[in-house]
Parts: sequence; structure tokens; C-alpha cells
Amino acid sequence: MIQFYAPDIETTLTLPESDSQHCVRVLRRSEGDVIVAIDGRGKRFTCRIIEAHAKRARVEIIGTEYLHPFWQGKIAIAVAPTKHLDRMEWLTEKLTEIGVDRITPLLCRHSERRDIKQSRLEKIAVSAMKQSLKAVCPEVDDMTPFMQFVEENRQTAQKFIAWCDDSHPRRLLSQALQPGLDAVVAIGPEGDFSPEEVDAAMAVGFIPVSLGNARLRTETAALVACDTFHIVGQLAGTDSAKPS
Amino acid sequence: MIQFYAPDIETTLTLPESDSQHCVRVLRRSEGDVIVAIDGRGKRFTCRIIEAHAKRARVEIIGTEYLHPFWQGKIAIAVAPTKHLDRMEWLTEKLTEIGVDRITPLLCRHSERRDIKQSRLEKIAVSAMKQSLKAVCPEVDDMTPFMQFVEENRQTAQKFIAWCDDSHPRRLLSQALQPGLDAVVAIGPEGDFSPEEVDAAMAVGFIPVSLGNARLRTETAALVACDTFHIVGQLAGTDSAKPS
Repeated sequence: MIQFYAPDIETTLTLPESDSQHCVRVLRRSEGDVIVAIDGRGKRFTCRIIEAHAKRARVEIIGTEYLHPFWQGKIAIAVAPTKHLDRMEWLTEKLTEIGVDRITPLLCRHSERRDIKQSRLEKIAVSAMKQSLKAVCPEVDDMTPFMQFVEENRQTAQKFIAWCDDSHPRRLLSQALQPGLDAVVAIGPEGDFSPEEVDAAMAVGFIPVSLGNARLRTETAALVACDTFHIVGQLAGTDSAKPS
Repeated sequence: MIQFYAPDIETTLTLPESDSQHCVRVLRRSEGDVIVAIDGRGKRFTCRIIEAHAKRARVEIIGTEYLHPFWQGKIAIAVAPTKHLDRMEWLTEKLTEIGVDRITPLLCRHSERRDIKQSRLEKIAVSAMKQSLKAVCPEVDDMTPFMQFVEENRQTAQKFIAWCDDSHPRRLLSQALQPGLDAVVAIGPEGDFSPEEVDAAMAVGFIPVSLGNARLRTETAALVACDTFHIVGQLAGTDSAKPS
């Protein structure tokens, strides 16, 4: 099944240019054909093509489906981008496939990479969303200084910080989280969070956690953290248990 | 911490050539220095260098640590390699980091890729094992025809087959597995398993499972399946709960 991505389809009844082109030029869909489009915010539309325009394909909506979120709350993964951009791009694809609401690239004291290409990560997220038949596209933030990220999450229901220093006692994320509530997990750079960063986070209620007994690369840790929510959610029955 | 990989260190008291070179030439370790080596089968050795030979560094073992496996049983992931080899290489790295005992590349009816470079995948696994401070290196099989794989797993305690066709009722893997027992999960190619393959697997006791409500790429599905064992193991207390 092919899903077109049309964030404003409900109001404009039109596919954006790139998806119009893909639909009409590449896939040769024409007037009267039925297609599926998603708005990236949880709705999937069944549409009939009214005008097979290669830049602004017009449709009528013949069915609307609200896709239940995979988790009752929102999942945000904040991660210090890796030195090699391809690992961050890979992570964006995988997080989107598995299911995430927000990806925040963190600028930390020990960050090896201090800039990202936000638009490129957004593009990868859209592509992964279409591929995985999801209807939710994660919000991809621009690079965010760690202290700003901490401030912005003062009110988040549950917040975790995973870091490698084993001088502090930590619980396993899988055992510390409460299924269904909004959650954010911060994953540090290869050089780990600084003690000041950990203190600042803990001061506003971040809970220090471990992801298990392996030393994971940054991007692997971010992926495992996100997957932990889904698995625990499945076991608690708050994740969608309907296989599809 | 740097870990050297020396499968036979307990009997030879010598590092293999590549690790000798890395130890002596690159890291400039010399007689009397203390290093750490793993045998890839669960043991970690603290060693003192006796002779800093750049091809056959000789050591004495001054401490042996048996690293408890992350899961009481063995975890095997059998997966039809993706068309693009880099995705399979990436998967090998990530599975090793998270923890897996065996990786079996499957040759299926709808396989898009019919050959792999076994030695290259083995090399990636060794490198990921060292990086993640694990002491267990997964066995990487050569390409294995699906029917042969099914036969070889007749006796495996629990066996699962994940596929995309939602015409069959399936349980979630997270809810179907029993923590701690040997387990194998088969993940099909992009074109999915054929009905004959599914039937053959089910005939010897493979249980059809789903990994959740997203359509995951082959390599993502394999990774999520492996991670599911660890998360469920953590919650059941059979996975090592000691953060490190």
C-alpha cells in the first residue's frame, strides 16, 4: 500500500507538489482512482482523484480513519547527534518506523557534533512514516542546547536521563517507566553527559536510568529506549495490541 | 576500556596477530602493562603482557571473570538479508551490541538477496562486541535455505515466525515469549515468507507472531524482535538487571 503525505489535505483537498508528481507521473494514477493519504498527525484518508494534476492533484475524501497512537502519551527522544551524520539519519528512520512523537537533537558539553541538517532529518522521517504505514510524523527539532531542553521539560509527566557513568545507582528504564504517560528520554553523546548536565536534569525531576547491561552506542541507546516504551506498553496493554 | 579479542587466549596465552598489532604498535603497550581480553564465549581476562611482540603478544592471565549471559537461554535471530548489504551489516552491529547468540541469514523463496559476505559480517560482529564491552560474540551462519533452518530448529525450546500477512491471527511476540528459554525468531524478506514456508515452520512448532502495529523494514523487525527478549527478560528479572 502506498501512502501519500499531505499535511493539509483536509482543508486543501490537494496533494503537495512532490506527492502529486509521484502519484500522477510516476504511478500514473488518474481521475477516479482511489488513493490513501495521511496528514502526519494521526489521520488516514481514503481519497478519489478528481483532477490528476502532476503538481496539484485534487481529490475528494471518501473516508477518514483516525489511527490510534501506539502509546497513549507522547514519546520524545532527545539525543546528542553522533559524529557521523549517517548514524543520526539512520536513527531518525528507525525511531519513526518504531514510533516516536518528537526527536530533539541535543547540544551537550561533550557533543562531538554541534550542527545537524534539520530539513534532511525531517525528510527522512516523512519517508519512513510513509514506508511504515504510520500516520504520525515525528516533530524533528533543530539542535537544542541541553539546559534549554531541560527547562522546556519541567512539566513533562515522566522524564529520564540515560548515561554511562555507573557511579550513580540507576534503575532500568523498563522498570522505571509508567506505561501510557507522556515521556522523554535524554541520551548523551559518546563522551557522556557532564556532571553539571546530570545535576541540572535531576534538579527538575529527570530520573537516571540504565538501558541494560551493554554499553550501547549513542544511536543504539536512543533506539532501545524508544523500543522499551513500546514493549512495556504492549505488555501493559496500552500499546496497540492489534497486530497489523 | 579497550577489550582485545583472543578466542584461544586461555590455552595459547597469546593475542592473535591483528590484536597484537593494535596492542603493541597502535596503543604502544609494553611488557608489564595490564590489558583486558575476551574470548567471545563469555569470559573476560585481565592479563599482564610478558612479551610485547607486534604479531604474537604473549601474556599471563592474572584474573578471569565469567560474564553472565544477558538472557538465561540463547537468542537466535534468523533473517532474510536485505537487498542493500549495508542494512544487513548495520543489523549485525546492532544485534551484537544489544546481545544475540546467533545470526542466521535466511534464503527464502522471496529473498531479494541470495548471497552474503559471511566473513565481513563476522568481522562486524567482533568489532561491535569489543565496542560494547560484551564478552559474547554471536555465531554468524552462512546463507541458510529456509527449509533447512526449520529442520535444524525442530528441538529449539521456543520458536517464532514474524510475518506481515494479517490474514492469520497472531500474538504479539512480547506476550508470546517465555523469558529465559532458548528462542529463535525468523524474520522474512521484504516480499514476506511464502505460504509454504509459513506452513512448514508452523508444522514443526513455530508460533506466528506480530511485533506491533507498525510495518517495519526487515532489519528493523529483526532488531525489535531481539530487543523484545531483553526488555521482557529485564521485566521478568532473567535479564541481567545490573546496570553497567
